[in-house]
Amino acid sequence: MKTGHEVVEIDCAERRVLVRRLDNGSELWEPYGQLLIATGAVPFRPDIPNAQATGIYGVHTLQDAAVLRRVLDEQRPKRGVIVGGGYIGLEMAEALIRVGLEVTLVDRSEQVMGTLDPDMGTEVTEALRCFGVEVHLGETVKEFTASGGVVTGIKTDQRTVAADMVILGMGVRPNSSLASRYGIPLGEKDSIRVDNGMRTGIDGIWAAGDCAETFHLVSRKPFYVALGTVANKQGRVAGLNIAGGEAVFPGVVGTAVTKVCNLEVARTGLQEAEIARLGLDYVSNIITTTTRAGYYPGSGPIHVKLLAEKGTGRLLGGQIVGSEGSAKRIDIVAVSLHAGFTVEQLIDLDLAYAPPFSSVWDPVQIAARELVKLI
Amino acid sequence: MKTGHEVVEIDCAERRVLVRRLDNGSELWEPYGQLLIATGAVPFRPDIPNAQATGIYGVHTLQDAAVLRRVLDEQRPKRGVIVGGGYIGLEMAEALIRVGLEVTLVDRSEQVMGTLDPDMGTEVTEALRCFGVEVHLGETVKEFTASGGVVTGIKTDQRTVAADMVILGMGVRPNSSLASRYGIPLGEKDSIRVDNGMRTGIDGIWAAGDCAETFHLVSRKPFYVALGTVANKQGRVAGLNIAGGEAVFPGVVGTAVTKVCNLEVARTGLQEAEIARLGLDYVSNIITTTTRAGYYPGSGPIHVKLLAEKGTGRLLGGQIVGSEGSAKRIDIVAVSLHAGFTVEQLIDLDLAYAPPFSSVWDPVQIAARELVKLI
Repeated sequence: MKTGHEVVEIDCAERRVLVRRLDNGSELWEPYGQLLIATGAVPFRPDIPNAQATGIYGVHTLQDAAVLRRVLDEQRPKRGVIVGGGYIGLEMAEALIRVGLEVTLVDRSEQVMGTLDPDMGTEVTEALRCFGVEVHLGETVKEFTASGGVVTGIKTDQRTVAADMVILGMGVRPNSSLASRYGIPLGEKDSIRVDNGMRTGIDGIWAAGDCAETFHLVSRKPFYVALGTVANKQGRVAGLNIAGGEAVFPGVVGTAVTKVCNLEVARTGLQEAEIARLGLDYVSNIITTTTRAGYYPGSGPIHVKLLAEKGTGRLLGGQIVGSEGSAKRIDIVAVSLHAGFTVEQLIDLDLAYAPPFSSVWDPVQIAARELVKLI
Repeated sequence: MKTGHEVVEIDCAERRVLVRRLDNGSELWEPYGQLLIATGAVPFRPDIPNAQATGIYGVHTLQDAAVLRRVLDEQRPKRGVIVGGGYIGLEMAEALIRVGLEVTLVDRSEQVMGTLDPDMGTEVTEALRCFGVEVHLGETVKEFTASGGVVTGIKTDQRTVAADMVILGMGVRPNSSLASRYGIPLGEKDSIRVDNGMRTGIDGIWAAGDCAETFHLVSRKPFYVALGTVANKQGRVAGLNIAGGEAVFPGVVGTAVTKVCNLEVARTGLQEAEIARLGLDYVSNIITTTTRAGYYPGSGPIHVKLLAEKGTGRLLGGQIVGSEGSAKRIDIVAVSLHAGFTVEQLIDLDLAYAPPFSSVWDPVQIAARELVKLI
C-alpha cells in the first residue's frame, strides 16, 4: 500500500498507471494486472464569493471532523450556519446544538431531506424548529461574507445571516474525472458505470464505492448513491471477483437513515417524484401511531408513509419519521422491497411484538392495513 | 355482546349453542348463522400440594396484573419465586426486581427461554444472574409449602426456597375442550385445527386466536403458538371471511421477542431441535458485535445466531440476545424467512445504517457473512 501517491494517468492498452508522488512530484509508470478504481466522492463546494474564507468547513474526512472539533473547543463560536438540509446538514445541526451554538440551516429546496416526500420532509423541518434551529428553505446562498479572510456570515437571495462558522452539507459528486478522461464509461450522475460484478467494461478495470454506479432494484434502473453500506458491499464483490470469484451485487433499494436530536428519519424505495418519473400509478398514505405499546414507558410518536403501485399492490417505498425506536423499522420495508412483496403481504408478516418494542401490529403493518384499502 | 355468559354445548347439526348465565345458571339455546370460537388459552397450573394456597399467582388476565400490583403495593413481599423461565417468567422477574424483591427463578429445563437454542439460552441465564436473580435450572417443583393457607415457598426435587409470593409462568394450553367435545377436530398441541381461512371444517364454525392452530411457513407443518400477533392476524382473517370475504392467513415464521431488565431477547424460524426433527442438515453460527457503531455513545453488545440449510443455504432461523437496540433486528430475519431467502441474499440486503443505529454491515449481515462460509 502506497499513501502519498496519486494516479494521474491510466493507460488501458498497456495496463499501466502513471503514479505521482505528492511530496516531490516525481512520476513513475506502474504496471497492473487488475485495476480497481475506488476514488470515492467529492463534496460539492459552491463557486461563489469568499468560498475559500477561513471558517467555512466541509465534512468529508476524519481530518475534517478533527478540525471542526478543535475549532469548537478552542474558538468557541456562537453562531453556526449550515448550508444544506441533507444527512450531513442534519447531523451537523445536532452536533452544533449539543455544544450550545445558535444554528441556522439554509437549503435551496422547499424542504429538508430531499430524499423524503414533501409531506414527510415537513415533519423533519418542524422538528428542527422545535430543537431551536432557524430553518430557511427555498433560499440560495449567493455569497459568503468575510472580514480579513475570515467568514462572518452568508448572503442568500433573501437575507443576510451572521455566523462565526459555516458548515457545508451540499452533497457529493462521484470522483470519476480521471476514469472518464481515459475512456472509462460513466453512467448516472457521472459515476463510473459498472455491471453487477463491478466490471467497468474495460478489460482488467473495476470500480466500487462512491465513485461507482449501482442498480436500483425497485425502479430496475441504474442508480447513484454515495453511502457506506453500498460502498462496502460493492468493495466486497469487487475484491472477490478480482481474486477470481464470481460474486454479484444485485443492487440497492435506496435505504438510508439519519438522526437529528431525538428525531429519527429513515427512507427506502422510491419516493413520489421518482415514481412519477417512471410513469407508475401509485397510492400512498401516512399513519401516525406509537413506537411501543401506548401504555409502555418511553413510547413516542412515529409517522410511517408507504407507497405502492395501484392495481397490483406492489410495494414501492416507505418513509419513517419519529422518536427513538422508529428508524430501524425501515428495514422491514427494505427487506420487503428486496422480496418484491405486495402491501397485502406486509400485513401477513410475522414481526416481533412485545410492549417494550412495538404495538401488536407493527407501525409498518398499521400503515399497510390502511394502504391496502386504496389499492 | 353478552358478558357473564358461557357456551356450554355446541349443536352443529341445528346450528345452535347452549348459553349459560354465570350469575344464576339459567340456560338458553341460541341459534347461530356463523360461529367463531375464540376461547383463547388457559395457563397451566401444576397439580401438586398447596397449589391453591394464597400467594400463588398466574399472569393471564388484566385482572391478574391488577391483583399482583395491589399485593406488591400493600403487602410489600420480600421474596418472590417464579416458576418457569419463558416470556412471562422473565418479564415478571424484571417486574419484581424493579420493586426490590429478592427473586428466585426455577425451571425444569436445563435453560431459560426454551424457544432459544441452549447456546443462546445460556446468555440469558447469565444475564439473569447478573441482574441478581437466583436461577435454578433442571429442577421440578414438587410442592408449594404453605402455612394457614398462605404460601411460604416451594420444594423442588433438589431444594426448598422460601417465598412470600410465587408467580407461575408455566405456559398455556389452547382452550379447546368445548370444541373437541362437540366434534370439532383438534390439531397441534390440541389446538383447534383450522385451514388458512380460519375454517374448522365444520360448516359455519370458525376458530381464531390462542385456541386455534396455525401453519409454520419454514417447517411447512401445522404449528401452535399463543401470541397476540398471531391471534390478531387470525382474528382479522376470520372476521373478513365470516363477512363473506376471501382472506387468507398464510401462517407464521415463529417470531417472538421479550425483554428482561436491559437484556433484549428475540427469535424467529426454527431452532436446532426443530430442524433436527425435520431431518434437515444445517449449519449455524453465533457472532458477537455491537448494536451501534462501536464508537457511538450507547453502543452495547449483541449476539446473533443464524441457522441455514446446508448445501442450499436457505435461511432457517435466527436468534438475538443483546443490549438495547438488539431485539427488533429479528424482523430482518423474519421478513427474510417469509421471502425464502438464502444466507447469501441476507448479505445483499440494503439495510439502514447510520452510526446511532448500526454498524455499516448490520449485525445480522455480519452473522450472514460468517455463516455463508459454512454452507
